[in-house]
Amino acid sequence: MSTLDKIQKLKGFREFYPEVMAARRKVFDTMHRVARSFGFHEIDTPSLEPLELFRIKSGEEIVQQTFSFVDKGGREVTLIPELTPSVARMVANRKDLPRPVKWYSIGKMWRYEEPQSGRLREFYQFNADIFGSPKPEADAEVIALAMKILDSLDLGGKYIMRVSDRILMEEILRGIGVEGDLWEVLRVIDKKEKVDEEKFREMLSGVGLVDKQIDDLLSILDVRGRCDELSDVLGKYPQYQRLSRIFELVEAYNVKGEIILDLSIVRGLAYYSSTVFEAHDAKRELRAILGGGRYDGVVELFGGEHTPAVGFAIGDAVLEILMKREGVWPEEKISVDYYIAVIGDSARKTGIKIANSLREKGFRVDLDVMGRSLSKQMKYAARINARKVIIVGEDEVKKGAVIIRDMASGEQEEKRIEEIVES
Amino acid sequence: MSTLDKIQKLKGFREFYPEVMAARRKVFDTMHRVARSFGFHEIDTPSLEPLELFRIKSGEEIVQQTFSFVDKGGREVTLIPELTPSVARMVANRKDLPRPVKWYSIGKMWRYEEPQSGRLREFYQFNADIFGSPKPEADAEVIALAMKILDSLDLGGKYIMRVSDRILMEEILRGIGVEGDLWEVLRVIDKKEKVDEEKFREMLSGVGLVDKQIDDLLSILDVRGRCDELSDVLGKYPQYQRLSRIFELVEAYNVKGEIILDLSIVRGLAYYSSTVFEAHDAKRELRAILGGGRYDGVVELFGGEHTPAVGFAIGDAVLEILMKREGVWPEEKISVDYYIAVIGDSARKTGIKIANSLREKGFRVDLDVMGRSLSKQMKYAARINARKVIIVGEDEVKKGAVIIRDMASGEQEEKRIEEIVES
Repeated sequence: MSTLDKIQKLKGFREFYPEVMAARRKVFDTMHRVARSFGFHEIDTPSLEPLELFRIKSGEEIVQQTFSFVDKGGREVTLIPELTPSVARMVANRKDLPRPVKWYSIGKMWRYEEPQSGRLREFYQFNADIFGSPKPEADAEVIALAMKILDSLDLGGKYIMRVSDRILMEEILRGIGVEGDLWEVLRVIDKKEKVDEEKFREMLSGVGLVDKQIDDLLSILDVRGRCDELSDVLGKYPQYQRLSRIFELVEAYNVKGEIILDLSIVRGLAYYSSTVFEAHDAKRELRAILGGGRYDGVVELFGGEHTPAVGFAIGDAVLEILMKREGVWPEEKISVDYYIAVIGDSARKTGIKIANSLREKGFRVDLDVMGRSLSKQMKYAARINARKVIIVGEDEVKKGAVIIRDMASGEQEEKRIEEIVES
Repeated sequence: MSTLDKIQKLKGFREFYPEVMAARRKVFDTMHRVARSFGFHEIDTPSLEPLELFRIKSGEEIVQQTFSFVDKGGREVTLIPELTPSVARMVANRKDLPRPVKWYSIGKMWRYEEPQSGRLREFYQFNADIFGSPKPEADAEVIALAMKILDSLDLGGKYIMRVSDRILMEEILRGIGVEGDLWEVLRVIDKKEKVDEEKFREMLSGVGLVDKQIDDLLSILDVRGRCDELSDVLGKYPQYQRLSRIFELVEAYNVKGEIILDLSIVRGLAYYSSTVFEAHDAKRELRAILGGGRYDGVVELFGGEHTPAVGFAIGDAVLEILMKREGVWPEEKISVDYYIAVIGDSARKTGIKIANSLREKGFRVDLDVMGRSLSKQMKYAARINARKVIIVGEDEVKKGAVIIRDMASGEQEEKRIEEIVES
């Protein structure tokens, strides 16, 4: 085994070369911009946390999927698989924060799952939450933010936002006579798309539903569409009114994507208390682009006051697949504004001074550090997509003027060095 | 034990609330801006790597200081304690990259060390490297970048860049008759400031130096000053010429900070092959702000072609302490451009439309999601440092005009809603 074989990156992890990084940076910049425009403020949390933080809130299932270990001090710790517990703790620890608290972040998360399309072991996640408001206005603001981010990434029309509500679901399930722990039933519903109908019926029966209830439930899970068009079916449930208000408000945000009520949306985590939502690609070929909902009990769990909360997260893996499929992923090349070709040691300091001056003006300027021939330097300048090349040789320094070559047009102009350096 | 006690963050890790995050974002933005102006391109690497990657290159000492563990698949892995091995592998894997390769990144690193002032278990690090040039021009470009970043953070005059060279040190040590493994001697020299003179002599004796050599070495380690003023002492060593060239070139970059030659600079990692440098606060009270040097063997270690390389890293912990001490740390407050106060449900959609329109123009706009009274909303607007408040009530909607209040001056003006929404 060669040295090289040993040290390749781990499966499910990524390296970002400059072109890829530049594309990602553009996507992240859009997320930052839209979140800030909504009055959200950026925060950051530790990437490593006590494992207990996730046991408390997310349940054993997510703990199984973490990169967790015992550190050198004997603490059970984990790379964070999601942001909500850390953020909830930050809110719990600061009772002085003006409410509502509107926070967002973009950071890495890790999950020990089998890597597959749209699912990596290390991924970036955009997170946003509003803490402090129990109102549908907060749900609407958060859902609108999610949709505006996708719209701003040119995905308007390419995705569908699907919204449901666990309280509504509870009202429905109780209505068809389901008793006992509803979370057990919701967990099964959440797995619906991963199994066939026979298996699904079997699983529902396993959590105590009788055949009639299973039949009723199956038809309920097919309920999806514009919220206002479902009032005949759902109007009798009290929670439907709240959900309707959210839909009405989200429309006022003038979002480009479609938003529907879809009772099959459950979300995999136990802590959601009311609204739940997911956005999928309109062709429904990929995993969820984003997911979120309301989790009013979260801050209390960490010793804080009761604090209503609603938020969501967008992972970068499915987003990238979708953006590429739809042709809106930014294809970036590396580039610089100027390349300073230096010929001969005596011209070097003048080259540095010119670079200096242009850099201070905000230009991206590369400068020979190889001592290569002019033709090799010109080749390099072309490969790094320099827009202009400034040629600085001994003759130029003597004359006090350099040649500036526009790499696109091939046009050249002579310019006094002091004009560049002083201006 | 209450729930809260259990789930506080780990020692040596940080949470960033919005004000702190905004300050950090400003510092990072400066680093991005200066690095890009130097023609460096951003990259990103995995945060978790095979532990072997660091064993190979950094030696057992750094491995002892990692958050390393065996993952669920039985792999020995570690949170990255430094970036160079991952970056070197990326270069090794891509023979097609135009050389020189100029890359930078800002990311989190982790070290399992006892937290103390300026040393955390989780920290951010700015990294920059040039791969492909063996010339002093590359060393100068990299050192100048480091200094320009500090200068741009308003630290000009507050730091000293201290440069040495391991080849020069080897020439000197061989000159005073030291034989055998020089890295053993350098490791001891690197510890000089942590022990008293007696202990230091003992340690040098432990790696085979006789008393005369120890005396000679002690006076050598006091050699520091402007490079050109040390030619009497160091002129006879061949490597001094190369170092002089670096100093001469760095001066041409018009840096604000002081740069000196200091033979006591060694750097703790085995892989440096020539130039080594560190910047310290001018008062010499803190740990190093940044460190770097030339490591020509690194890419080859990972199966790549022989590729000369020079780079450095700036940690964020010491930097923050120094910037705060010097009064140049950006003290940021959260703020928004507009807060939309909504009074009454019927005004809500108009409020959303106004928010929408201002957000699309790039303003940071917060909007009531609590349904509070106007006076409570005004208090909240003041606490989040809203510059202007737009009051949207039923009367305003009927009149088609809203009141815009400037929070600094207290002045109010009336504006037609369609003027805001349409313009």
